Amino acid sequence: MMRLPISEEKVFKDPVHNYIHVQDDIIWRLIDTPEFQRLRRVRQLGTSYLTFHGAEHSRFSHSLGVYEITRRIISQFERKGYSDWPAEERQVALCAALLHDLGHGPFSHSIEEAFQMNHEDWTCRILLGDTCVNKVLLELGEDFPERVASVIRKTYDKPIVMNLVTSPLDADRMDYLLRDAYYTGVNYGTIDIDRILRMLRPHRDRIVVKESGMHAVEDYLMSRYQMYWQVYFHPVTRSSEIILRQIFRRAKELYEAGYAFQFMIEPLPALFEGRLTVQQYLRLDEALIQTAFLQWTAEQDQLLSELCGRFIHRKLYKYIEIDTGNPETIDAIRQAFREVGLDPAYDVEIDFPTDLPYDKFHSGMPLNEKQILLLDRHDQLREISEVSDIVRSISGIHKGRNYLYYPEERVEPLLDRMPAEVADLFRR
Amino acid sequence: MMRLPISEEKVFKDPVHNYIHVQDDIIWRLIDTPEFQRLRRVRQLGTSYLTFHGAEHSRFSHSLGVYEITRRIISQFERKGYSDWPAEERQVALCAALLHDLGHGPFSHSIEEAFQMNHEDWTCRILLGDTCVNKVLLELGEDFPERVASVIRKTYDKPIVMNLVTSPLDADRMDYLLRDAYYTGVNYGTIDIDRILRMLRPHRDRIVVKESGMHAVEDYLMSRYQMYWQVYFHPVTRSSEIILRQIFRRAKELYEAGYAFQFMIEPLPALFEGRLTVQQYLRLDEALIQTAFLQWTAEQDQLLSELCGRFIHRKLYKYIEIDTGNPETIDAIRQAFREVGLDPAYDVEIDFPTDLPYDKFHSGMPLNEKQILLLDRHDQLREISEVSDIVRSISGIHKGRNYLYYPEERVEPLLDRMPAEVADLFRR
Amino acid sequence: MMRLPISEEKVFKDPVHNYIHVQDDIIWRLIDTPEFQRLRRVRQLGTSYLTFHGAEHSRFSHSLGVYEITRRIISQFERKGYSDWPAEERQVALCAALLHDLGHGPFSHSIEEAFQMNHEDWTCRILLGDTCVNKVLLELGEDFPERVASVIRKTYDKPIVMNLVTSPLDADRMDYLLRDAYYTGVNYGTIDIDRILRMLRPHRDRIVVKESGMHAVEDYLMSRYQMYWQVYFHPVTRSSEIILRQIFRRAKELYEAGYAFQFMIEPLPALFEGRLTVQQYLRLDEALIQTAFLQWTAEQDQLLSELCGRFIHRKLYKYIEIDTGNPETIDAIRQAFREVGLDPAYDVEIDFPTDLPYDKFHSGMPLNEKQILLLDRHDQLREISEVSDIVRSISGIHKGRNYLYYPEERVEPLLDRMPAEVADLFRR
Amino acid sequence: MMRLPISEEKVFKDPVHNYIHVQDDIIWRLIDTPEFQRLRRVRQLGTSYLTFHGAEHSRFSHSLGVYEITRRIISQFERKGYSDWPAEERQVALCAALLHDLGHGPFSHSIEEAFQMNHEDWTCRILLGDTCVNKVLLELGEDFPERVASVIRKTYDKPIVMNLVTSPLDADRMDYLLRDAYYTGVNYGTIDIDRILRMLRPHRDRIVVKESGMHAVEDYLMSRYQMYWQVYFHPVTRSSEIILRQIFRRAKELYEAGYAFQFMIEPLPALFEGRLTVQQYLRLDEALIQTAFLQWTAEQDQLLSELCGRFIHRKLYKYIEIDTGNPETIDAIRQAFREVGLDPAYDVEIDFPTDLPYDKFHSGMPLNEKQILLLDRHDQLREISEVSDIVRSISGIHKGRNYLYYPEERVEPLLDRMPAEVADLFRR
Repeated sequence: MMRLPISEEKVFKDPVHNYIHVQDDIIWRLIDTPEFQRLRRVRQLGTSYLTFHGAEHSRFSHSLGVYEITRRIISQFERKGYSDWPAEERQVALCAALLHDLGHGPFSHSIEEAFQMNHEDWTCRILLGDTCVNKVLLELGEDFPERVASVIRKTYDKPIVMNLVTSPLDADRMDYLLRDAYYTGVNYGTIDIDRILRMLRPHRDRIVVKESGMHAVEDYLMSRYQMYWQVYFHPVTRSSEIILRQIFRRAKELYEAGYAFQFMIEPLPALFEGRLTVQQYLRLDEALIQTAFLQWTAEQDQLLSELCGRFIHRKLYKYIEIDTGNPETIDAIRQAFREVGLDPAYDVEIDFPTDLPYDKFHSGMPLNEKQILLLDRHDQLREISEVSDIVRSISGIHKGRNYLYYPEERVEPLLDRMPAEVADLFRR
Repeated sequence: MMRLPISEEKVFKDPVHNYIHVQDDIIWRLIDTPEFQRLRRVRQLGTSYLTFHGAEHSRFSHSLGVYEITRRIISQFERKGYSDWPAEERQVALCAALLHDLGHGPFSHSIEEAFQMNHEDWTCRILLGDTCVNKVLLELGEDFPERVASVIRKTYDKPIVMNLVTSPLDADRMDYLLRDAYYTGVNYGTIDIDRILRMLRPHRDRIVVKESGMHAVEDYLMSRYQMYWQVYFHPVTRSSEIILRQIFRRAKELYEAGYAFQFMIEPLPALFEGRLTVQQYLRLDEALIQTAFLQWTAEQDQLLSELCGRFIHRKLYKYIEIDTGNPETIDAIRQAFREVGLDPAYDVEIDFPTDLPYDKFHSGMPLNEKQILLLDRHDQLREISEVSDIVRSISGIHKGRNYLYYPEERVEPLLDRMPAEVADLFRR
Repeated sequence: MMRLPISEEKVFKDPVHNYIHVQDDIIWRLIDTPEFQRLRRVRQLGTSYLTFHGAEHSRFSHSLGVYEITRRIISQFERKGYSDWPAEERQVALCAALLHDLGHGPFSHSIEEAFQMNHEDWTCRILLGDTCVNKVLLELGEDFPERVASVIRKTYDKPIVMNLVTSPLDADRMDYLLRDAYYTGVNYGTIDIDRILRMLRPHRDRIVVKESGMHAVEDYLMSRYQMYWQVYFHPVTRSSEIILRQIFRRAKELYEAGYAFQFMIEPLPALFEGRLTVQQYLRLDEALIQTAFLQWTAEQDQLLSELCGRFIHRKLYKYIEIDTGNPETIDAIRQAFREVGLDPAYDVEIDFPTDLPYDKFHSGMPLNEKQILLLDRHDQLREISEVSDIVRSISGIHKGRNYLYYPEERVEPLLDRMPAEVADLFRR
Repeated sequence: MMRLPISEEKVFKDPVHNYIHVQDDIIWRLIDTPEFQRLRRVRQLGTSYLTFHGAEHSRFSHSLGVYEITRRIISQFERKGYSDWPAEERQVALCAALLHDLGHGPFSHSIEEAFQMNHEDWTCRILLGDTCVNKVLLELGEDFPERVASVIRKTYDKPIVMNLVTSPLDADRMDYLLRDAYYTGVNYGTIDIDRILRMLRPHRDRIVVKESGMHAVEDYLMSRYQMYWQVYFHPVTRSSEIILRQIFRRAKELYEAGYAFQFMIEPLPALFEGRLTVQQYLRLDEALIQTAFLQWTAEQDQLLSELCGRFIHRKLYKYIEIDTGNPETIDAIRQAFREVGLDPAYDVEIDFPTDLPYDKFHSGMPLNEKQILLLDRHDQLREISEVSDIVRSISGIHKGRNYLYYPEERVEPLLDRMPAEVADLFRR
């Protein structure tokens, strides 16, 4: 085990946690790798900065925050001498916390959807590939990179480590709530993290919460609920993501059709062809994507040029709320669009936000890692929604507002030529 | 005058000012122009994010903040009915506040130094050129763009408007102190802006401060002082700026020498040749610069490739404190470097931070726009450093720490071959 | 109408609202009356400071806060020119907001319960009696004191004014949530008051909320819910209130029995006899109550002396959770206590916290002033729990935890002599 | 050594430090004594709540805060293994930190001045007398109470412990700056305590600051400077303190003259006679003082009655700024007052605020415990004002604004009868 002499603890100033404390040499050296530094060029909230202008923070900041929370939890376990915490797992847990987002691409959710990629796979490929991160991890043991990767993949043989790093109450979620609230300015995400951390206990294979922390967990789940509706599912953000996906889709169509791009840049061809190597993947960042888009505003393909202009200059699609339970309505819209010469493949998109602040499940289900468990003073565990009315009420909420997005400038002049029952939807 | 009906006031959520209130149609439409949206791709603090990872905020956010503070000041003047404030100047002042940073290029201070550009000139060229911003401004009158530009240039015929927009206690400085403190997490920049705003008074040609606001101004100047030393002059940031300038310098040298770049992108050639048009200038942003640098890490020119790798992967120059009052020392270092085969043009840089929190001037000087004036209850003006010991003490401070920066990996192995008095400087 | 010239606006520094702005001469003069200054000697949260040591703030601070929020709401209505707001009601509303707590006695909830008093009645008696407040109000018109009193009594003929001052989303509740959160340090009470205020609309006879403010209201109600359980119903606070009520009860018993107090102070005899005049009532404050209690720690009556010692030195009753649905259990406890020589009238108290964050009511109920109404863009009103799952879930919550309180030192040594089924309740 | 099992760490919720952590059984039991609980009835800032209504916090809160900061410093020393810190002094230091204000009386500064008392003496008398605090301390050893007292008296034989508890950068000052800023709402007192704590080092006999913490210390000293001028020396507060002292003076005069008080309460007679026992002293609190004053508003002595009314109803003295360098002016005022029948002993008071944010001393002075020392990387110590221009500038500031206070209602009608050069001073 290589740990820094404690007197040389280093710190990063962080607006959310005040200071990030680095006490292990391995952490210092991982932060210093090109692969980790690349996260500075990938925003934490993708296109949300187009809705909340303050939300310009990167996955680099978030990753440091997740590391710091994990470090505080483990330090507390060590300080209090809880025997259910396996002390020898400290470094695996810290590394997994720090590196869990390493494989995120630029505008991650959109690019993953457009090109069927998965950031966890890429995280593991980077951990295990010919990279600086891999070299640093190897110094802790030949199997160390694989141990970290298996925590990410959730196949590690110590469930408590995975539960610490990935669970409904993990350091990842706690950091992003606090950080996204801080940077957007939306204060619903403010949680009493000190209290939650104080209430965490290692208990057999899991991290559980002392019963007296129930209200703090309720507050945390309500904060998540609010952040989902106020920030993550904001229709303006979704509108920009739709445009982003359409750009990726159009560019790929053109590439596959042999279109002669005036501007092309490595490694986009490999991205379109679905054969990115790890080295190529690591060259993808949001600077490159934005640069390509800005250059493409001058492309001859009018659709690509228009979409890129929309994204770069923030001319987003307009939206209307729509009842998605009624497929005929949507079919009627598509049909009406087609008849007036609009392109249903690009001029109308329907969006269904689906994530949940706390996953619903039936009370009869066995305890599992997606649940938050409370530990009472008789050492009994109970799933939180059994105890909390609040949690029960929001764990059942998954109906949301569904929106249909469209290019106002093209659609509105044609409304008069559409059937009234379609046109009226767009006229409010 | 086109002002939005007040009931349609629009807001932006802002972490620093809570809400940015847009009450004038012209402001809404200026924000929506491509030229203003471009500021999202230019960071407020240049390379400071390499020192303070949270400092990823853009000039877009800052510009909204400057506008908002200016709006609050003017609203207060209007509400309190101060006759020295010319009510008809509201829109000129708001537009100048919003647009004052429009001409900032990517990594502004470094690029300006490297290519002898000036962001205020560019702001005026954008305001007056064939741009969307110009078109929006024209709707308020044929001379309106020129009026806004003349505020920026400080040639406007209403000194009070210029004093509001540019002075040692202006909305620009107040916003950046608060915002940079918020995003870096360095809380020295926290000032009581509500109190300062309440103490401002239009007085003949100037904005002055009620005498009872003296301590609030002291606190503001101390905050600036602290932010200069803690953040703006941080040697790690300076180190990254030095590398940035070296990249620009090397790329230009290569371009002029006819070097065949494997990667080149518009409008860099025009930048190197010093003949950027407004349209070209507007394509310059930090995404483009970072993308070029990342691509150039694979260039054949070893120096360019190394410098770009340093910047992108944050392998910055090391630094030592140095007594710049002694030119022989510096000559000796350069000489020693040359003799062991190092390149004094790239392997050693000396940096002198020079800005001041409050400009020093002699007590006998006439009142001028660089001074902060206090208004006492007998309507007499006094320059603040005449009254405040604190301000007097810091207005005289301009000695700072000077550092010499160098590439550790190349220099340190050669120290043994240098004269001892030079080598010892690098060995602490 | 006497309103201060706007340029002489005065401010109070307030940690919650930053500044309290006084723009009306009447408000300034009301604050300056002895009756309003008395509120400095009555704590906002009664005995909560014995649980949360920071909660030492007074009703004076809170009253200023309620006034300030009301002022901001009205200013916004005036600025936006909403015609449903009756402009001539400004001063009645501001005065009612400022003075609504004027009649609160020391440790208000406990003293009211012990002596069957009602602070709203006392507020009206002070407003209408021979007081400085009454004199100041009279200057605005002969009927002005009565108009303010009728808002407090909810009999004023302008329902919108009462709805502004007293409703489930009123300035009173908003201030106490923010203020109690600030002073206790329990951050669950943090709400986005700027957003809520921006969403309020005068609509016919009521203040309603724009539909897009729904999530902000959800957050506000959740904050109230959390503050109830974390702070207002905290069992340690309830324990101290029980002791307080027992002191009042015992002192009255002794007084009525002709006991010779070594220390007695005006106006306690009148309090015990239930014949306090307004002048006497105004001499009651928490300094007086604490002083009497401290002196009574030396009384010969052992029970009174012990109870006062408990309160002053914070030797509170212990508590156990109890199922109050089972009256036999409670009877059995009382019986067991009696049999071992304990006094069921003082040695055991059961407490049922009952307030609700949002009152439940049936969906079929007509709209009423206890409801929060949302106004959609078609100008339709809907009660919030029809729209919000969250609100619906908490509006149904009124089961809480019930506790039984007892003097540990006296009870525990006697447990062995009680029936096992009783004793075990106390042994956990 | 009795230390709680670490798993039973207890916490207090604190708005300033978030949580106060109690890890030692002795601390828990000291907090629970009547002597420590009494501090709940003594305000931290005396009469400042009459200027800043939020400043209602007690010495109880502050004492917990001082304890917590001290605990954090020591924990850090222990965790980092600094050998210059004597580990066995932990409990002495923590107890001294917690108890250092135990002897503060009600409205401490005024009562001390009026009756020539000293709170440090009283602290020691309580520590060593027949008190619960003494009993708890004795459990740690027969000499333990004396060890704690000698830290307070600054005669302890371990200078580093005294330096930790009392120095220009001690936990006491850090807590009061943060806490007073928090409760008044004046944000000048905000300091980066985490950074300062991280920079502290035990070094031989002292606690010193790592050189890189210089700017943080500058900021701390500037915050003190600002708090002195904005809060502690605020003329409205001084005005109320003057009235308070006049009440004490008048009541003592009357008592000594055999005046028959309608209301008298223990232990005021002993206070007037200067023969308070420890038990009597412990019955003095602000509730008692306020109660006596409120009762005395009905005394027959008109002066006492008026002064008490002024204090209780906040009818404070008005003030004018005055040049105290000119004794003739003051003599002329007193003379003029006397001639028109005013009482120079009560109707005019001159106030000289004198405390300093950082004590000035000559550069030639040897290092002493009133200095803040910086430790450079070569282990050399330097007094901070040798290095910092800012500190040097404020360490020299001791001129302040001097005010003359007077009862406006009595003085102003008589101005016409005074010499013009005196009257004009009061007419601005």
